[in-house]
Amino acid sequence: MYRAPVQDMKFALKSVQNDRPHLAGALPDEEMIDVILTEAGKLAGDVIAPLNHEADKAGGAKRLDDGTVQTPNGFVDAFSQLAEGGWTSMEAAEAFGGQEMPLALSSCVNEMWQASNMAFSLCHLLTQGLISALEHSANEAQQNIFIPPMVEGRWTGTMNLTEPQAGTDLAAIKTKAVKNGDHYLISGQKIYITYGEHDMAENIVHLVLARTPDAPEGHKGISVFLVPKFHINEDGSLGAQNDVHCVSIEKKLGIKGSPTAVLQYGDNGGAVGYLVGEENQGLAIMFGMMNHARFNVGLQGLALSDRALQQALSYADVRVQGTPLGREPKSPIIHHPDVTRLLGQMKAESEAMRALMIYGAALLDEAEGGDEAVSRRADFMIPIIKGWLTEQSLIMTSHNVQIHGGMGFIEETGAAQHYRDARILPIYEGTTAIQSNDLLFRKTMRDEAAEAKALLAEIATDAAQATGHDNEAIAQLAANLSLKVAEAEAGIHSLMARQNNPREIAASGVSYLMMLGTLTGGWMLLRQGLHAAEALALPEADTAFLHNKLASLRLFNALSLPQVSAHAETIMLAGTATESLNIAEWLA
Amino acid sequence: MYRAPVQDMKFALKSVQNDRPHLAGALPDEEMIDVILTEAGKLAGDVIAPLNHEADKAGGAKRLDDGTVQTPNGFVDAFSQLAEGGWTSMEAAEAFGGQEMPLALSSCVNEMWQASNMAFSLCHLLTQGLISALEHSANEAQQNIFIPPMVEGRWTGTMNLTEPQAGTDLAAIKTKAVKNGDHYLISGQKIYITYGEHDMAENIVHLVLARTPDAPEGHKGISVFLVPKFHINEDGSLGAQNDVHCVSIEKKLGIKGSPTAVLQYGDNGGAVGYLVGEENQGLAIMFGMMNHARFNVGLQGLALSDRALQQALSYADVRVQGTPLGREPKSPIIHHPDVTRLLGQMKAESEAMRALMIYGAALLDEAEGGDEAVSRRADFMIPIIKGWLTEQSLIMTSHNVQIHGGMGFIEETGAAQHYRDARILPIYEGTTAIQSNDLLFRKTMRDEAAEAKALLAEIATDAAQATGHDNEAIAQLAANLSLKVAEAEAGIHSLMARQNNPREIAASGVSYLMMLGTLTGGWMLLRQGLHAAEALALPEADTAFLHNKLASLRLFNALSLPQVSAHAETIMLAGTATESLNIAEWLA
Repeated sequence: MYRAPVQDMKFALKSVQNDRPHLAGALPDEEMIDVILTEAGKLAGDVIAPLNHEADKAGGAKRLDDGTVQTPNGFVDAFSQLAEGGWTSMEAAEAFGGQEMPLALSSCVNEMWQASNMAFSLCHLLTQGLISALEHSANEAQQNIFIPPMVEGRWTGTMNLTEPQAGTDLAAIKTKAVKNGDHYLISGQKIYITYGEHDMAENIVHLVLARTPDAPEGHKGISVFLVPKFHINEDGSLGAQNDVHCVSIEKKLGIKGSPTAVLQYGDNGGAVGYLVGEENQGLAIMFGMMNHARFNVGLQGLALSDRALQQALSYADVRVQGTPLGREPKSPIIHHPDVTRLLGQMKAESEAMRALMIYGAALLDEAEGGDEAVSRRADFMIPIIKGWLTEQSLIMTSHNVQIHGGMGFIEETGAAQHYRDARILPIYEGTTAIQSNDLLFRKTMRDEAAEAKALLAEIATDAAQATGHDNEAIAQLAANLSLKVAEAEAGIHSLMARQNNPREIAASGVSYLMMLGTLTGGWMLLRQGLHAAEALALPEADTAFLHNKLASLRLFNALSLPQVSAHAETIMLAGTATESLNIAEWLA
Repeated sequence: MYRAPVQDMKFALKSVQNDRPHLAGALPDEEMIDVILTEAGKLAGDVIAPLNHEADKAGGAKRLDDGTVQTPNGFVDAFSQLAEGGWTSMEAAEAFGGQEMPLALSSCVNEMWQASNMAFSLCHLLTQGLISALEHSANEAQQNIFIPPMVEGRWTGTMNLTEPQAGTDLAAIKTKAVKNGDHYLISGQKIYITYGEHDMAENIVHLVLARTPDAPEGHKGISVFLVPKFHINEDGSLGAQNDVHCVSIEKKLGIKGSPTAVLQYGDNGGAVGYLVGEENQGLAIMFGMMNHARFNVGLQGLALSDRALQQALSYADVRVQGTPLGREPKSPIIHHPDVTRLLGQMKAESEAMRALMIYGAALLDEAEGGDEAVSRRADFMIPIIKGWLTEQSLIMTSHNVQIHGGMGFIEETGAAQHYRDARILPIYEGTTAIQSNDLLFRKTMRDEAAEAKALLAEIATDAAQATGHDNEAIAQLAANLSLKVAEAEAGIHSLMARQNNPREIAASGVSYLMMLGTLTGGWMLLRQGLHAAEALALPEADTAFLHNKLASLRLFNALSLPQVSAHAETIMLAGTATESLNIAEWLA
């Protein structure tokens, strides 16, 4: 069962607006927000969520002998409902039939799709990514041909990056593209193509990275092509199948409902592809969509975390096992102090993650206006959101299994599925190490830590202002945040001081990212706490919700924020320790 | 591929002997140790390990329509080899055909079985547990009937504790035992019975918890019975099947090769069972074997961690992806700083875990002699070894997946299997919360933290002595351990000060356990470092091994020990934070 966390989403949207007025201007009115979130929540909870565990149990998507792929029971119908409800058009520009909703709002809806059924909703997510890429980089004719059917939910999109020898390292791509009149002929093999073949749409549009014959080696010789599964006639109707075929799908640890295809291009002379932008500009185009893609994977981490929390909470509320300390016999396990602690930690961290997600979305929205300071902050936050939220999802889905005890290890309960599903999140769209490198080198060292220090200064100011607040939960978190900011600053100074030894500081990159994730998560909760304290003073206040929101501040302060100190200490020491290992002798 | 870590085992055995001379007296000579570890390593690496992933891929054990269970390909033969090699007799008393090897040595061999194939080797592990239980609690006649065939590897044993309503809470057990002459008739249903039915042995001996009709309610009314699958004739030959049947096996997240049975007793009048000890003494008997059982699950955590490390290391040594900072193009990913960091962390933590495992085994061996101080220390260490080593195995197996990148998420590589297999470890034989309660209340509060303080004092003394050591790795770790001991002491004082609020301190239990796990792991590495520094001075020193052992000290100091500070801070804050959550309002 999945129930969309509409109340916390609305609260988070309000809290972020307090500090980013631009968001208030971009959002529809409160009534409309409520309708959108409530209706999306119904579709997610009633239609999409019930398919999730069934799809997994049945073994997921299946490739048939003719090369087509059958998605699990109910997926085709659910995707039609997504389209019919207008949900596939939320983000796109009005010119292409979209609704141009701000990302901060559409992301709340996206959280629902991903939480209710990540394997199913990946298709929609990737299609939104492709629409956004084409809005930014395709020419008008391409936009008019390819975008509207995706906005309508009739076609879907994919990203074709990876090849067996080229995963993290896109410079190693070998797929070929040879010019042939107004198009190119594509040949090669792509792997790990999510929804590379399926039965939920009339056509599939592949965005393919490839090289032209005389392209420079490495990163600078990569171009991007649009390759439709079925040829498109002048009138928009579909023709024969293009020269691209699904040769297999992977047997994966999780998200089994989502077909992960190996696609073969050009077995019969070459697949027809259309160049996007100019030749050899492929990586720049891909980088242009990277922020949104990484943001969305972070969002998936939040989504699975909340789903795990909901399941753990439901189970802990009914399972009876022993008598909790100081409670009546037959009290359910939720009253065992360690179960309460685990659930409380999941609650506080999910709420911090959601707040950070909406903050990030608001920055991405606002950055479209061209404000450089906002862009810098958005660029800084993206690897944190991708890295921290996805790493957190491993812990949260693990906590859910733990709360289920032995039942958690039995596939029937579904807790194990979330644990398996989550494991891809810190890997795809750039591993946590890649995010950390990005944060450390591109986003911190390159500007002499100016943006990092600006962020810490902002947290320090908020913390200083809230220290001594009447509300004890706020005062306590604020005081502790001030201490942790100082430790984080020391960590950053230590990194800056070793700039000329990039190997050494790179070994601390993940700790640096996790430290800032935890710290900014605490910061977001502090802001939410201040908002909650104000809201409590209003006559119509939902005191139950607001008191437990303030409990989240205490829980995060006790259970999460101490990690900042540990990461700061590791940052100082990890480099020399790592370099002291003699790899050659170890392998001998 | 699995290669037994013989060198590190021998080094760890030596290091522990330095501080616990009793172990030196109990162990065979060095040559014999070498032969034992080397031969076991061959069987584990050549025969048992290759079956592991194949069994998982093929879907694991299968129940046939006639109620029998077929283990995966090769298991039957491998189990015969285990028996024929004399490995099933290592631990048992000589009187029953055993070799009476000290646990510190047999545990190294057990690590190999569990690392090479945990699903397969669980059967052996449980059988050793049953042998040990019968040695302590059964009468002579029972011992002579049941133990020798298990020592020979012809029969295997199981533990039948759990029922659907009675997992962690054994007081809720309902299975009935009615006296009928010289035996009892058992009826009821038991779940989660590992190797409750299989085809690797002639007979299966179930140790079953049940209640007699007039037994007191709760914990005090539980008795223990031996129930053989096949009746045993006077001459030791086997008769007809007893009234116990496997009605299903579970579909699990991991250890799929190991059948987890639901056993139905007494559908035809009652299964014949023999009382062990006296009526209503069941829990005391189970508690008597608990230390060994929990120790062995901790050992499994170490085993899977080392297996994950070995796989990650092999992969990182061949996979090429991008050029590592400051290294030649085509250098494998092991040279990327964050991959080196992850592998180094896994190395240091595995070694700390192995040292702690052998230290715990030496304590359990020595405690058999009746020394109360040793018993207290053993009792104190068991929940730490069970809890910390199993929680660590989740992180280690996750790191292995991460190092594999996208390949880690594909089942074919096997990395995902270790991740799935490990997830049971912090659950069975008492969840981490149960271990933490045991450590906090029974082992710490009950003696006013005397044993806890004695342990910290010992660590502090070692650290003080090693501070200023010529070797920088040792000096650095020693100095930091002194600081961490002080933080841990403050944490314990804070718990003691709140003794009269057990709910509040219980919420910090897991942090308390993890803090002491990390701290004692660091302590073990400090001792190993001192041993390594001495060994380096010898002419025949293996300098490559020893230098990297010293690197483990630096790595643990940088990457693991900072967690002590975080846990100590959490201990202070978790109770009030957890209690501030209003559960009723949250659930409303």
